[in-house]
Amino acid sequence: MGKHLKIIPLGGLGEVGKNMTVLEYGRNQIIVDCGVMFPESDLYGIDLVLPQFDYVLKNQNILRGIVLTHGHQDHIGGLPYLLKNLHLPDGVPVYGTALTIGMVEQKLEEMGVLEYANLQVITDKQTLQLGPFKISPFAVAHSIPDSVGLVIDTPVGAVVHTGDYKLDETPTGGRTTDLARLRQLTPNGVLALLGDSTNADRPGRTPTEQLVADTLDELFAGAGDGRIIIATFSSLLARLQEIIRLAHKYNRRVALTGRSLQQNVELASRLGYLQIPKGLLVDVRSPVPDHKLVILSTGSQGEPRSALNRMALGEHKQVQIHAGDTVIVSGGTIPGNEEDVGRMLNHLFARGANVIYGSLATVHVSGHGSREDMRVMLQSVQPRFLLPVHGELRHLHLHARLAQETGLKQEDIFILQNGACWTTDGEKAWLEDAVPAGDVYVDGYLVGEIGASVVQDRERLAQEGVVIVSLPINKRHELAGKPLIISRGFLHPDESDEIIEAAIKELQRGLRRSSRAKKRDRIQQVEKTLQDFFYHRTQSRPVIVPNIVNV
Amino acid sequence: MGKHLKIIPLGGLGEVGKNMTVLEYGRNQIIVDCGVMFPESDLYGIDLVLPQFDYVLKNQNILRGIVLTHGHQDHIGGLPYLLKNLHLPDGVPVYGTALTIGMVEQKLEEMGVLEYANLQVITDKQTLQLGPFKISPFAVAHSIPDSVGLVIDTPVGAVVHTGDYKLDETPTGGRTTDLARLRQLTPNGVLALLGDSTNADRPGRTPTEQLVADTLDELFAGAGDGRIIIATFSSLLARLQEIIRLAHKYNRRVALTGRSLQQNVELASRLGYLQIPKGLLVDVRSPVPDHKLVILSTGSQGEPRSALNRMALGEHKQVQIHAGDTVIVSGGTIPGNEEDVGRMLNHLFARGANVIYGSLATVHVSGHGSREDMRVMLQSVQPRFLLPVHGELRHLHLHARLAQETGLKQEDIFILQNGACWTTDGEKAWLEDAVPAGDVYVDGYLVGEIGASVVQDRERLAQEGVVIVSLPINKRHELAGKPLIISRGFLHPDESDEIIEAAIKELQRGLRRSSRAKKRDRIQQVEKTLQDFFYHRTQSRPVIVPNIVNV
Repeated sequence: MGKHLKIIPLGGLGEVGKNMTVLEYGRNQIIVDCGVMFPESDLYGIDLVLPQFDYVLKNQNILRGIVLTHGHQDHIGGLPYLLKNLHLPDGVPVYGTALTIGMVEQKLEEMGVLEYANLQVITDKQTLQLGPFKISPFAVAHSIPDSVGLVIDTPVGAVVHTGDYKLDETPTGGRTTDLARLRQLTPNGVLALLGDSTNADRPGRTPTEQLVADTLDELFAGAGDGRIIIATFSSLLARLQEIIRLAHKYNRRVALTGRSLQQNVELASRLGYLQIPKGLLVDVRSPVPDHKLVILSTGSQGEPRSALNRMALGEHKQVQIHAGDTVIVSGGTIPGNEEDVGRMLNHLFARGANVIYGSLATVHVSGHGSREDMRVMLQSVQPRFLLPVHGELRHLHLHARLAQETGLKQEDIFILQNGACWTTDGEKAWLEDAVPAGDVYVDGYLVGEIGASVVQDRERLAQEGVVIVSLPINKRHELAGKPLIISRGFLHPDESDEIIEAAIKELQRGLRRSSRAKKRDRIQQVEKTLQDFFYHRTQSRPVIVPNIVNV
Repeated sequence: MGKHLKIIPLGGLGEVGKNMTVLEYGRNQIIVDCGVMFPESDLYGIDLVLPQFDYVLKNQNILRGIVLTHGHQDHIGGLPYLLKNLHLPDGVPVYGTALTIGMVEQKLEEMGVLEYANLQVITDKQTLQLGPFKISPFAVAHSIPDSVGLVIDTPVGAVVHTGDYKLDETPTGGRTTDLARLRQLTPNGVLALLGDSTNADRPGRTPTEQLVADTLDELFAGAGDGRIIIATFSSLLARLQEIIRLAHKYNRRVALTGRSLQQNVELASRLGYLQIPKGLLVDVRSPVPDHKLVILSTGSQGEPRSALNRMALGEHKQVQIHAGDTVIVSGGTIPGNEEDVGRMLNHLFARGANVIYGSLATVHVSGHGSREDMRVMLQSVQPRFLLPVHGELRHLHLHARLAQETGLKQEDIFILQNGACWTTDGEKAWLEDAVPAGDVYVDGYLVGEIGASVVQDRERLAQEGVVIVSLPINKRHELAGKPLIISRGFLHPDESDEIIEAAIKELQRGLRRSSRAKKRDRIQQVEKTLQDFFYHRTQSRPVIVPNIVNV
């Protein structure tokens, strides 16, 4: 097989989420990130999507370590599921910066798998040797502190993985993307760049977080005698810090609502990522007058059970929204959540609040660089090969298009699918046989038990409902009574008596013609008769479930 | 009851779609618009939503006529359903400009209800008397030609209904919003303004359609030897005209694909709204070389069965997309369609096309005015009362907020719900008892038979699937055999044998304890036993359908 470098993305290509990449050299493997994906709306009932771990589990004897770029769920959320299934005596070492490891620890503990973990804190100034891989993190600006990109020196050349990044020169957290260190770390050039493609369809530069800080300052100044209620992402600590600073400046206390927010604030202040003036935080039930209060909340995506949505619906136990309140939704709407967010905004307006959201003012900016930021990264790194990562297919292609503008040749850009085995000897690059890299669905306690066919069934049930028909069949294979039809999600019970009776008659007519059929033929016949009948009458195709009852 | 003016919105308030407003004075009623709404994604399986017509049907003896503002589905799509249910000897007169009536005619014919219609073409310069209502249309710029707003003179004062409008001074179709005529028609001021609120959360002015024309010109110039494939709304005739002009300029032929596009082009050229140079249109199967061809298509919303989506999936019979093609998606993404559009774009990129869409270039502008356009309208009309219409609650509230900035008092702005009965004597205004104005669902041939409870059932089926359990019960009310469990959309059949067997055992245990229960208690017991069992094992709550089989 020769000593070649293999880069195998197991997730994050052709999708936004479950980022995970395997690097292999000889009998040495490392993993960069292990995330989850939140399902699109057509994945009925699915809670989470995981990468398929088969390839890693099969080769765990050569796994030298897992390196994490930052603490977002789409980069660490799959870790508990992976660790649970690895069978290494001392646990595989997992490396990340202090906040990242803190968030992993929390997550692992919650899921009861902390015992399997061997967590190691690193800084963005140190270097790590894992087998033949020398890994040097460098600081990047992103929407969670302590994010890093990675320079990975391998025997055939240096690989750069950007992680998620933007090029914000005035981030409120003060952390900029350390392009100087990146260049220093790669004196002999870069063989391959794995570059974040998330915002490849946004022209220009991503605005600085400072803009949001300025807008929030104005909104605080104008809030008058009312409360200020702000929803944002619980991991957006730089924004939380800014809100805490403004609350202090405008002489308001801050109350937190939403579990993930409380957890992250506790963790971040313990680790020193949040400075909170003493006495500023109050319990949400404290009797603080409206003009002295800021309520920080989860729910910027309109998630049905989030704190802000419960306030919008009047179902929050502690907070009732009323006229005079300023409600700021300080989080970009993730594609697919538009309807939920829209509905929540409507309810908030209906309660008389002064609601401020994305299209009205700059209360959020993206954590990912836009096209011009990506161009700067490409020009700084000047890689021999580009592997666009983190994005749907259109983002990967647009990243490639951009790279061609900066001088890269089309044949040196590889738009890969999850599972592709990109291989290089340091000179040339080619694809070897792909490894399994499907979607693994999590639904409640079920991990992987539910596949695409079950989801397809759910889609049909969702569209037209289900009709269950029970046929009493005697030992001579004849209909021994009246068929019974029950439906759910098909027609309203009050409206359907007539059509159900007609369906039963149709069925009896058909069955009389073909008495003594075999059970299997009988089932098919019943399905077809009812499908045709209902389609003719309603233009709907409910799922038909025939149920032969032997009497 | 006194002679007061009543304005009763039956649709379009608190939602985007199914716009319909009733005006009443004494025993005289008119209707402005009668639209449909396309369902949000949580209305599983529903094709369309109609306004509830009960109030109109009950009072049809005083209905003097229906006036339409323009030919979009959210303003005319409900008409066939309404006309079918009216029982007026000569049909109620329906008034609209030539294109609007042309589109209505097409729609009525398609649905086989043209015989019920009494269609009347009017112009935007004439005036119409319907009982005590004097109706004068005025031209407005919108994304379909021949759109009008209405000045409706009533015995208690003038009402202005803007219809859908923008204030584009350089529309490619040449039609501007005629504020001069509007002012001329209202020499004594305006009692009430019903104003389009669609873009109340967009700051600034809506850009002119000319920007799109300029962008398209550049894209045509840069398309090289490949085909140009453009998807847009089939009723966006100004854009179609511009594309036809550009095709002529760049010496390309135009082929149409998509039924609604072909219909609208045929209708619009027949009525003179589209000028197509002779020989420019070709059949999509014609052997025109790539660099001489523009393909105009439907599918800008990623609709699964649309022409462009079929091309993206490689399922279009006549058009295979390949490298070199420029694909332009020239339509804004309607909220809720983001995932469909995103998937389609990914497939188009995967085929190697140069894909251009909204976030990359100005290939679409809205047909509705933004906040600064709305401010101009408010200042031109200076109404005594404002009734924001056309929009979700947040849009209505933001329209109200804007009106207050222009000097209207809060108590003179009415944010109504569908069915509200806004009443005025020309001096004061108040609300009288509301009329029924719910949502009527259309699913296939079923109109109104499917209500909220059926949709809720579908939602539960979609999330967790269905488990059907058949219990053979003998005449002594005892279990007379092994229960049978069938599921759909719950667990994968291969993975579920063990859990289903365990569920049956659990059920038998429970039923043995309570033999001889009544049928109803038995059903409840079975439901509860299985719900608890499956939730404990899987954290899912499938719909349980118990099925007692008497043997």
